[in-house]
Amino acid sequence: MLRRSVMLGAAAALGAPALLRATPAAAQAAAAAPAAPGFFRFRLGEFTVTSLHDGSRLVPLQGLVRNAPLEEVQRTLAEGFQPTDQLRITFTGQLVDTGRALVLLDTGNGPQAAGAPIGRMAGAMQAAGIDPARITHVVISHFHPDHINGLTQADGSAAFPNAEVLVPEAEWRFWTDEGAASRAPAPMQPLFANVTARFRPYQGRIRQGGDGTEAAAGISLLAAPGHTPGHAAVQVASGAETMVYIADTTNRPELNARRPDFHFVFDMDPVVAEATRRRLLDRISAERLRVAGFHFPFPGAGNLAKDGNGYRFSVVDWATGV
Amino acid sequence: MLRRSVMLGAAAALGAPALLRATPAAAQAAAAAPAAPGFFRFRLGEFTVTSLHDGSRLVPLQGLVRNAPLEEVQRTLAEGFQPTDQLRITFTGQLVDTGRALVLLDTGNGPQAAGAPIGRMAGAMQAAGIDPARITHVVISHFHPDHINGLTQADGSAAFPNAEVLVPEAEWRFWTDEGAASRAPAPMQPLFANVTARFRPYQGRIRQGGDGTEAAAGISLLAAPGHTPGHAAVQVASGAETMVYIADTTNRPELNARRPDFHFVFDMDPVVAEATRRRLLDRISAERLRVAGFHFPFPGAGNLAKDGNGYRFSVVDWATGV
Repeated sequence: MLRRSVMLGAAAALGAPALLRATPAAAQAAAAAPAAPGFFRFRLGEFTVTSLHDGSRLVPLQGLVRNAPLEEVQRTLAEGFQPTDQLRITFTGQLVDTGRALVLLDTGNGPQAAGAPIGRMAGAMQAAGIDPARITHVVISHFHPDHINGLTQADGSAAFPNAEVLVPEAEWRFWTDEGAASRAPAPMQPLFANVTARFRPYQGRIRQGGDGTEAAAGISLLAAPGHTPGHAAVQVASGAETMVYIADTTNRPELNARRPDFHFVFDMDPVVAEATRRRLLDRISAERLRVAGFHFPFPGAGNLAKDGNGYRFSVVDWATGV
Repeated sequence: MLRRSVMLGAAAALGAPALLRATPAAAQAAAAAPAAPGFFRFRLGEFTVTSLHDGSRLVPLQGLVRNAPLEEVQRTLAEGFQPTDQLRITFTGQLVDTGRALVLLDTGNGPQAAGAPIGRMAGAMQAAGIDPARITHVVISHFHPDHINGLTQADGSAAFPNAEVLVPEAEWRFWTDEGAASRAPAPMQPLFANVTARFRPYQGRIRQGGDGTEAAAGISLLAAPGHTPGHAAVQVASGAETMVYIADTTNRPELNARRPDFHFVFDMDPVVAEATRRRLLDRISAERLRVAGFHFPFPGAGNLAKDGNGYRFSVVDWATGV
C-alpha cells in the first residue's frame, strides 16, 4: 500500500511536464528588469540565518490536489491572492551560521536549470557574499531534484567542496535500494539515477542520521515522512529561539497550510504526509516557533497561526533583517 | 473641535521622544551584518513599481493608541507576531515607472536621519540603479517629516533636481498658513519650519491638487483626510490593474488594519481618520485591488482581505518580482 502510493506519487510528480520547464510568462517576467537579489538575513538567537531564493515556476492546477475538486483549490488560492490558473511554486533554502558551522538546508534546482527562473541559489549566495567553500554542512531534507540538484556544479563536481552532507537514513535507504529502483515504474527511474549523480562527488562525506541527529550544535533532523519515505524537517535552536524548517511537509502555505487536508500529487504517501503536516504545524503554531518552508514565499521564513481548520503564514518582517 | 484635535495630535506625535532617535537594539541589529538591499520591483499592468525601503524604528506602545487599553494593543500585536513591548514602524516609499514618467510616492526620513536605521531610501534607490535626477514627479501624501524629509539633501538642496512635486492642496494650505503656525503649540512649531525648509528648493515646481488630480497619466490623488488635514492617498492604475497607495491612512497593518477602530496618536483627527481608513480598506478589499502603505512591511505592497471586523494584509510575493 505504501509502496503503491509512493510509486504513483513519484511518477505523477515526475510526469507533470510543467515541472520540467519554465512557463513563458515566468520567463518573460524574469527577463524584464534586474530583480532585487534573492537573499535576506535575520537573527535566530545567536545564529544568523540567510534565506537564499532559488526562483519559482508555475505548474498546472489540474490534478495537483488529489482529494479536492479544482474549484475548491482555486477558491483557496484566490483567498490567498494567488493565481488561480496555475500554482506558483517558489524555492528557498536557508543557510544557518552558528558562529562555528555554516549549515545549508537544501540546495535548490541547481545549475542544470540555468536560464530558467529557477536554479538561482548559487547566485543568491554570491550576492549575499557567501563562499560555497566555507559551507561546513549541507542538510538534505529529501531526495527530490529541487532539493539535491544544487549539490553539484554543471560539470558534476561538488558545489560545496568542504561540506559534510547529512541525509535522513530512511531517505538514503529508499533511493539507494537497487531493488526499489528496479521495481520502480519507468518514469521514476531518472529520479534514482539523479540521486546517484548528485551524491557521487560527496563519497566519504555523507552521513546518515535519524530523528534527532545533529548536523552541528543546535541543528538537528526531525523525522517527517510522507512527502517521501525518509523526508525530514530540521530544527534550528539557539538560546530561546527555535525555527523548524519543515521543507516539503507543506507546499505553498496559502494552499497547503490553509488546507492541511489537501493531498498534493507530490506527496508519495499522502495520508502519512497529512499526519506529519498536522503534527508539525500544530506544534509550530502552538509553541509560536519560527517556521521555514522550502516552498514558502521568500524569504521562506516567518510564523504560523492556527485559524479555523488551517493555519496562516506570516512572512518574516524585512525590518528585522540584519 | 477639528483644530483642537489637530493640535493635540500633532503635538503628541512630535512629543514622542522615540520618534526622534533610534533604539539601541535596532541600531545594533543594523550594524551586525550587511543587509539585503531594500528594494523590490514588481509589475502593475504596464507599469513597473520599485519599492524603496527607508528603514524602521521602534516606538513606545504606551499612549500610542488613544482609545484602547495597552493590553488590547499588545494582544493584537502578539496575534500578528509583532513585538509587544514597542511598535516596530517601517517606512517604504513606492516609485512608479509608467514608461513616460518616473513618479516617487513619498520620500522617507531623509539624510538628516543618517546613521540611524532610517533615511535609507536614497541608498535603496542607488542599489536599484535609479538616478534621482531621472525622477520626473514626486507625490507627497502629507507633510509629516518621514514623508517630506527626503525631498532635500543634507545641504538643503533638492534631492530630485528635475522633479515636479505634487502636493494635496488642503495639506499645503494648512502647513503654509501663517495663522495656523502662529496659533500652534510650541512643540508643533518645528513641523511648520520643517515644511518650509523641505519645499524651499522646489519653488516654482510645486503643484497643488485635489481629489482626482493626476501627477502623470494613471497616477492620481485620492483625498484621504484625518491623519493630517490634507492627507491624500494615491491611485496607480494601468490596464486592468490598480494599486492604491494609502500612505498613513493605516499604520502597521498587523495593528491598524486588523483593528481599523484603533486611533493612533499620530492621527490629527482620529474620527475622520477612521472613517477614511474604513472607506479605503473596504474598497480595496472588496475590489481586490493591490494596496501599498508607507508603514506596511517591506516591500510595503500586497493585498488586503476583509476578516471579521478588520482586514488582513498579504505582502506581495517576491516570486512575482521583475
